[in-house]
Amino acid sequence: MILVNGIEGSAVDARDRGFAYGDGVFRTLRLRAGTPLLWPRQYSKLEADCAALAIACPPATVLEGDLAMVAARNPDGVVKITLTRGIAARGYAIPHETRVTRAVSWSAPSVAPDRESGIRARWCDLRLAIQPALAGIKHLNRLENVLARSEWRDPAIAEGLLRDTEGHVIGGTMSNLFLLRDGCLITPTLSGSGVAGATRDIIIERARAEGIAVHIAPITPQEVGAADALFLVNSVIGVWPVAALEELTWRASNWSGRLRNWISDAESR
Amino acid sequence: MILVNGIEGSAVDARDRGFAYGDGVFRTLRLRAGTPLLWPRQYSKLEADCAALAIACPPATVLEGDLAMVAARNPDGVVKITLTRGIAARGYAIPHETRVTRAVSWSAPSVAPDRESGIRARWCDLRLAIQPALAGIKHLNRLENVLARSEWRDPAIAEGLLRDTEGHVIGGTMSNLFLLRDGCLITPTLSGSGVAGATRDIIIERARAEGIAVHIAPITPQEVGAADALFLVNSVIGVWPVAALEELTWRASNWSGRLRNWISDAESR
Repeated sequence: MILVNGIEGSAVDARDRGFAYGDGVFRTLRLRAGTPLLWPRQYSKLEADCAALAIACPPATVLEGDLAMVAARNPDGVVKITLTRGIAARGYAIPHETRVTRAVSWSAPSVAPDRESGIRARWCDLRLAIQPALAGIKHLNRLENVLARSEWRDPAIAEGLLRDTEGHVIGGTMSNLFLLRDGCLITPTLSGSGVAGATRDIIIERARAEGIAVHIAPITPQEVGAADALFLVNSVIGVWPVAALEELTWRASNWSGRLRNWISDAESR
Repeated sequence: MILVNGIEGSAVDARDRGFAYGDGVFRTLRLRAGTPLLWPRQYSKLEADCAALAIACPPATVLEGDLAMVAARNPDGVVKITLTRGIAARGYAIPHETRVTRAVSWSAPSVAPDRESGIRARWCDLRLAIQPALAGIKHLNRLENVLARSEWRDPAIAEGLLRDTEGHVIGGTMSNLFLLRDGCLITPTLSGSGVAGATRDIIIERARAEGIAVHIAPITPQEVGAADALFLVNSVIGVWPVAALEELTWRASNWSGRLRNWISDAESR
C-alpha cells in the first residue's frame, strides 16, 4: 500500500525533484498493532532533515493521517515516509513556490532470521565521500549506499561496514555502528558522512542516562577490530550484534539484550 | 511533453529507485528542427554512465523512438533523458531482475539572453565532496548542485563556480569550465567530483585536433583568477564567456566565437 499526498496510488511525477535530483529526505519506521513506533522522534528527524535542505516539512498531523490510513489496513510492518521538494521545471534552482510531495508506503515485516547469535559483516571497498553539508541527513542521494551494498550477494553476510575517504569507519550500509570497549560505548562521528538514525540517538541518550560513557568520535578500523563487541542498529532491524567481521569473530555478550531493552522501552513509551 | 517508457504521461512509481535513491543517470540535450543534437555522443555518455552504475542502458534505437515521438510534436527545445534502475522493493541491494525506467521530457527552448558579452559568476560556498566512484557520472544524486545553486537568487548572476573539499575548482553548478592561459586551454580534472559533459569532450577533442594544447588538471582558484579568459559550457547554453567573477573581470575575446564554432561544427556533423 502506497499513499502519495494522502491518496492511495503509487504514481509520482517524473518532474518531481525527488526523481530528478534526489531532492528530498526519508525515514523508515516500524508499525506495531497500528502504532508507528518512535513516531515523535521520527517526525523530529524528518523536520530537522527537511530544515537542513530548506524543504517545508508537512505538519505532523498530516503525516499522522497518512500513517493512520496505512495502519488501518496494515497494522504491522514497515513504513517508509519520503518527502521531496515537489514538482518543478528543469533546473537546480529551487523554485519560489513548490509543494512538498509525500509518499508513505507500507511493506511486509522483514522476515528477520534469528540474529541473537550475531550477524556476519564485511568491509566495503567503497569509501564514503566527506560532505559536511549533507552528513547525518537521511536524504535521497543514496548511490553510495547502493554501490556499497552491491559489493556482495552472499546472503550469509548481513551488512557491510563503510569507511570514509579518510579511512574512518562510519557505519553499515543501512545501519549505525556502536563499539563496546571497556564498558564504554563508542559510535562514529557523523559530521562528514553517514546517516544519524533514530535508534542511534536512543542508545546514546539511554546509555548516558544509565551513567554509561558514550564517545562520539572518529573511529579507525583498528579500533573496530579491538572492540569487545560491535552492534549494528536501525529502526527496522533493532540491534544486530556482529559475530564476525571478515576473519575477526566476537562471542555473544549480554549487551545485546541490554541495548534491545533500551529500544523496547523507548518504543513503548 | 513527457514520455515514460515510451508512453505519454508523467507518472513514475514511488518505488522507482530513481525516486527512492537517485539510482539513475540523465542527460540534457537540444532538439533543433526535430534533430537531437550530438545524439551519438550523448548516447555514448548515457551508456558509459549506466555501465558505471551497472544499469542496463536501453538500446539507442529505443531512445531514438522516444526522441522521434517528442520531436514530432516539439521539433525545437530541450530534451532531458532520465534512466533509472527501475521499480524495486525497499532496500539498497540491487534486485536480480529490474527493468530500467526511462523518462524523456521536453521543455521549451531557454530564452537565452545575449551572452556574447559574457556572464557574471560567483564562487559557491558549498564544497563538492570527493567521490571517485561517482565522479564524472551525470547521476541523479544532485543535492550538492541544488544546494550550491540555492546560494544566490540574483538573476544577474548566471552561474556559480564550485570547488571541492580540497579547494580545487571543479566547474559550474550546471556547466564545465575552461580556462584560457597563454593560448592553451585548461579544464579541471573530474576524477573526484563533477560531471563530464558532452560539450567539454567536444572542446577538448577539437582543440587537440587544431594543435591547441589542452591540459586536464587540478585547478586552483588562483589559476582561475589569473586566466586570460574563462568559459562555461554545456549542451544547452553552449559557451558562456565569463565577464565577471566576483570582483574580477575579463574582456571579451575572439575565443568565444571559436569555441562556439567548434560546437556548431560538431552539432551539424
